[in-house]
Amino acid sequence: MHSEFELIARYLAPAPAPAAAGVALGVGDDCALLAPSAGEHLAVSVDTSVAGVHFPADAPPEAVGHRALAVSLSDLAAMGARGRWCLMSLTLPAADDAWVAAFAEGFHALCEACGVSLAGGDVTRGELAVGVTVMGEVPPSEALTRAGARPGDWLAVTGALGGGAGGLQRWQAGERDLDDPLIRRYLRPRPRLAAGLALRGLAGAAIDISDGLLADLGHLREASGVGAELWPERLPLAEGLVDALGEARARQLALGGGDDYELLVSLPPERLDEARARLAALALPLTVIGRVTAVPGVTGVEPTGVSGWQHFPGDTP
Amino acid sequence: MHSEFELIARYLAPAPAPAAAGVALGVGDDCALLAPSAGEHLAVSVDTSVAGVHFPADAPPEAVGHRALAVSLSDLAAMGARGRWCLMSLTLPAADDAWVAAFAEGFHALCEACGVSLAGGDVTRGELAVGVTVMGEVPPSEALTRAGARPGDWLAVTGALGGGAGGLQRWQAGERDLDDPLIRRYLRPRPRLAAGLALRGLAGAAIDISDGLLADLGHLREASGVGAELWPERLPLAEGLVDALGEARARQLALGGGDDYELLVSLPPERLDEARARLAALALPLTVIGRVTAVPGVTGVEPTGVSGWQHFPGDTP
Repeated sequence: MHSEFELIARYLAPAPAPAAAGVALGVGDDCALLAPSAGEHLAVSVDTSVAGVHFPADAPPEAVGHRALAVSLSDLAAMGARGRWCLMSLTLPAADDAWVAAFAEGFHALCEACGVSLAGGDVTRGELAVGVTVMGEVPPSEALTRAGARPGDWLAVTGALGGGAGGLQRWQAGERDLDDPLIRRYLRPRPRLAAGLALRGLAGAAIDISDGLLADLGHLREASGVGAELWPERLPLAEGLVDALGEARARQLALGGGDDYELLVSLPPERLDEARARLAALALPLTVIGRVTAVPGVTGVEPTGVSGWQHFPGDTP
Repeated sequence: MHSEFELIARYLAPAPAPAAAGVALGVGDDCALLAPSAGEHLAVSVDTSVAGVHFPADAPPEAVGHRALAVSLSDLAAMGARGRWCLMSLTLPAADDAWVAAFAEGFHALCEACGVSLAGGDVTRGELAVGVTVMGEVPPSEALTRAGARPGDWLAVTGALGGGAGGLQRWQAGERDLDDPLIRRYLRPRPRLAAGLALRGLAGAAIDISDGLLADLGHLREASGVGAELWPERLPLAEGLVDALGEARARQLALGGGDDYELLVSLPPERLDEARARLAALALPLTVIGRVTAVPGVTGVEPTGVSGWQHFPGDTP
């Protein structure tokens, strides 16, 4: 067992960051000191992942670390921001060296893969939860907001859908094969940072699909003041989803399930080819799934019975 | 009852921030977009306050909101940074409108008092906890770190000590008078942001007293590679502390109790008068309590039996 400070020092403090990473002073003082790039906006977001709510309490610690960071980085991706720094706030029921070491490994590996520096954090005692603050940068005129969709734009998604919810369903059914494509998809989502950067200057609006396609499309529609026509038969389905759950359920999850962390974007039609070419260079498909309309609401889909993830649903007594 | 999104929109989303506050895009998109000042370092820190660990689960919600923000802002104060923005991550066991409204009132009031803008956040379900990320700015050469103490410097503290621990003790004994000076001190600490700014260019090192004077002095000594001689009879004791708990216990708590959120600084002797004058303008005393020595360790105090706050103490089985 180690004190809080030893835990932080041993597992969570990163290797000294190169000056190029813009970290003037890292973990170990009252604050970290960062050097933002001149003339850029700082994009910031925080997400807290709670055991038993956002991830299974028995998920592998390495996956918990990866996933908590991934869901926050996904918000930077959806703004077209370049990931720069993060802060981690880890709440643990007990000090468990092995758990924290594996957790940190998953967290740090994704930091490295995404070029993001862990600049600070804290460790506290309580119900297992991970809060991750992410900071990125984007030139002022190039941020991808939710508000830029215009009637006539295509609606398109990166990658494939339904895998997050499908993986959660398999985990809940007792599947523990971490190499199962759906389990992997659920536990280790890949934030689409490179895609967000590639879509700067092309996409009118963007949002990441965390609550489910229909729910997140709702946020985008509301912010843009538009409606949407969806073509559900065109939804790109995650690898293994139809085999595991059948086509009907697969399509339900692609529409209404959460945890995919793909990007949903609106694209003026003349920019579609360029957007596809840029994402092809990242080996990432971009699939048109509908179009933006002037009429509020969504056409083309029936209620699925699978609603997007929402805490405290309005109908809870 | 309201959905997560309604809760956020109703209570946590701030009024539209003036452009002067450097918020280009506030709550409601995937990220907030901030406009950092050219040529300054960004000082960032995160602290999570867990019910039953960092504050009493039955504390008034307004105080929970105030306190969670105050402990994070205290880290900016200790760096000499100007507070700019914050993000809040609120975890709640159930949606309770009245509780959230009062919580938000306490949080927003301190934001306003400190000139800090709430730029975003999230609300999740789980054990009551509040994570607050704070962001401030400081010119690169003017940050007050823990590492700048030199032998021969005075050690000085702002305000008075022991009130945080004294207030917690009274709360645990059943006292619920929110106007009791110790209770007030514990539940509603004032981050010393103005003092941190005033001490730029004067203090050699600074740290905020959150874990207790001896513990935080230990962090400062370690970072600076120095020792300290303390004069415990000079410790400024919080209002009401001796009356409530007697002098011996008062001095113990001033030395070893946590939650004071005053600043401990090192000062080259020739700068003491100027530092006192600047803090006097803020109606804040600055008391010399010892001096920095070249010999590692601390002289002048006996072990108090009250150790600074630490989660997962090393001797826990």
